[in-house]
Amino acid sequence: MRTIYSDQHRLHVSPGEFGFGEFVPAFEKPERVEIILDRIREVGLGAVEPPKEFPLEHITSVHAPFLIDFLRTAHAEWSALRRPGAAYPIAFAGGGLRRDRIGGSVDTKLARYCIDAATPITATTWRAALASANCALTAAALIAQGESAVFALCRPPGHHAGADHYGGYCFLNNAAIAAQYLRDHGLKKVAIVDVDYHHGNGTQNIFYSRGDVYFVSIHADPDFEYPFLLGYADETGAGAGEGANLNLPLPEGTGWDRWAAALDQALAAARRFAPDAVVVSLGVDTYRGDPISRFRLDSEDFLRIGERLASLKLPTLFVMEGGYAIDQIGINTVNILQGFGGAARSVPRVSA
Amino acid sequence: MRTIYSDQHRLHVSPGEFGFGEFVPAFEKPERVEIILDRIREVGLGAVEPPKEFPLEHITSVHAPFLIDFLRTAHAEWSALRRPGAAYPIAFAGGGLRRDRIGGSVDTKLARYCIDAATPITATTWRAALASANCALTAAALIAQGESAVFALCRPPGHHAGADHYGGYCFLNNAAIAAQYLRDHGLKKVAIVDVDYHHGNGTQNIFYSRGDVYFVSIHADPDFEYPFLLGYADETGAGAGEGANLNLPLPEGTGWDRWAAALDQALAAARRFAPDAVVVSLGVDTYRGDPISRFRLDSEDFLRIGERLASLKLPTLFVMEGGYAIDQIGINTVNILQGFGGAARSVPRVSA
Repeated sequence: MRTIYSDQHRLHVSPGEFGFGEFVPAFEKPERVEIILDRIREVGLGAVEPPKEFPLEHITSVHAPFLIDFLRTAHAEWSALRRPGAAYPIAFAGGGLRRDRIGGSVDTKLARYCIDAATPITATTWRAALASANCALTAAALIAQGESAVFALCRPPGHHAGADHYGGYCFLNNAAIAAQYLRDHGLKKVAIVDVDYHHGNGTQNIFYSRGDVYFVSIHADPDFEYPFLLGYADETGAGAGEGANLNLPLPEGTGWDRWAAALDQALAAARRFAPDAVVVSLGVDTYRGDPISRFRLDSEDFLRIGERLASLKLPTLFVMEGGYAIDQIGINTVNILQGFGGAARSVPRVSA
Repeated sequence: MRTIYSDQHRLHVSPGEFGFGEFVPAFEKPERVEIILDRIREVGLGAVEPPKEFPLEHITSVHAPFLIDFLRTAHAEWSALRRPGAAYPIAFAGGGLRRDRIGGSVDTKLARYCIDAATPITATTWRAALASANCALTAAALIAQGESAVFALCRPPGHHAGADHYGGYCFLNNAAIAAQYLRDHGLKKVAIVDVDYHHGNGTQNIFYSRGDVYFVSIHADPDFEYPFLLGYADETGAGAGEGANLNLPLPEGTGWDRWAAALDQALAAARRFAPDAVVVSLGVDTYRGDPISRFRLDSEDFLRIGERLASLKLPTLFVMEGGYAIDQIGINTVNILQGFGGAARSVPRVSA
């Protein structure tokens, strides 16, 4: 399996995040993908290639142009106010507040577009986010051209970024951008299977009213876990998208048996949708050793996740999302890809 | 003028706030009102009396009961998770996220109800907030009984707390609770004049669809200042409240002349509404030395604010809101009350 990777991810280094009443070092850090890359090379998974560049239209096809403008210029506006460091919001668009305007100061826009205090914009964050999206787009182009499986080793991750907002360490929704690319290049239906520990609220937001992209997510119940306010089972899509959104929230402490049953349910639903390809939002923060998560998957379980994903027998684009247990992130991530590869001898190519 | 004050405000001490990318010591601190109290005694403004206790129904008449339940129990839930310190949100109800559910973990509720990372809930915050609301209610009862002017020296402040959310150092909206009390005790129409530097988004939220409580606010333009996403001039009320909401946002660097012109506009509008009493949301963070604000009023200007408020010749309830220039907060606040008192010889009593 080919991996698409850009070392420009190093241009995004979070100074830290505010959570549980403390400002702490960032969990989402550059070492994450470098350790995955080392493991890819160690096991000989396949070629590692840099991304190509794509026009911004592929990004604005899923994100509001004013959000993109903001992500590009936010840090310059922040610095122009003689503020040091990275741009964080000091208020948020919650109860009673408006999101219908555009414009205003950098603080106003931060309040409007950002959903937490864990996703800072540095001087070079935009370049890293753009390179990450280009990894997903490059991988999507390979799938569209007939490759059966590709790994987009994206960083920063993407699935918490929605049509007009960002957060959860995510700026651009790489999986959504890739799915849209596939739709724009001959594939009629795409399923996104999100196996990250956290609900992919951004991806759900982007495709919620569309019937051509199916979104299914297995994740920690938002009643106790980030993003808290989306990812419930009663969110089934709207309008043309009614029935094309499936959330499978699971309780604290979920181990392999229960998680695997949810995966089977997710894959059965994806199969019924009969997509032309699958995008996997690949997080490994379901691992029992993850420092910010509360599921209990073992490293070997990730092999089995890969095997089951291969059972769909569909062209599959893996997009890296979360996973914060640094020591094990390489093994866990590559286990999914190896499990998939070992079981996927018969995965077909796109024949759109 | 009588002052209603409770030393229970000391039960709320913020461990700090996250803003501009840093966790910094709290600006909203107990010394604020103690310095005001000293000044009240120094100038012999009048008696200082403790609040009476009032039934919770006076609070739930403007705040959703589930918000009140949350404020009362949040810290216990936080502690039950073995977390130290005060309860802060780690995510916020922004783009694409839901606020229509109730329930969930403390983190879910923090995300749903709180609009910033500057308003922590400690083990004793609820008691302080309740005492602060009781100060406003005690003062309102005096106005309803015929007193012409009373000062509720509230802390924590209130005007950023809305029907179902809190933030901006505010938990319970003391001014709104007082205005509602007046409505419930014979007064047909009440005007709230908010002279705090920040827009009173919570107060606007509570009364936005009502025609019996007029809200007018003079404040820093939310295009550059907290709360950023409310307080614009195009917000004029809705339904029965259409025309009963007036926002007068002003630019950075506003000094007395421009501010006073806005005050005259506010008072003319309040006069046209012909209220039976006025509640003043009294912030002095318009002072040029305020550490978090960007207006340029001088200490003597506050005397003139008081004089002009007295020109309404209406029973007037002053409710303390913001002001963070500790050294000058006593003089500035009491200047408003002295200015009012000196000019208010002819202020009538309630004759509802």
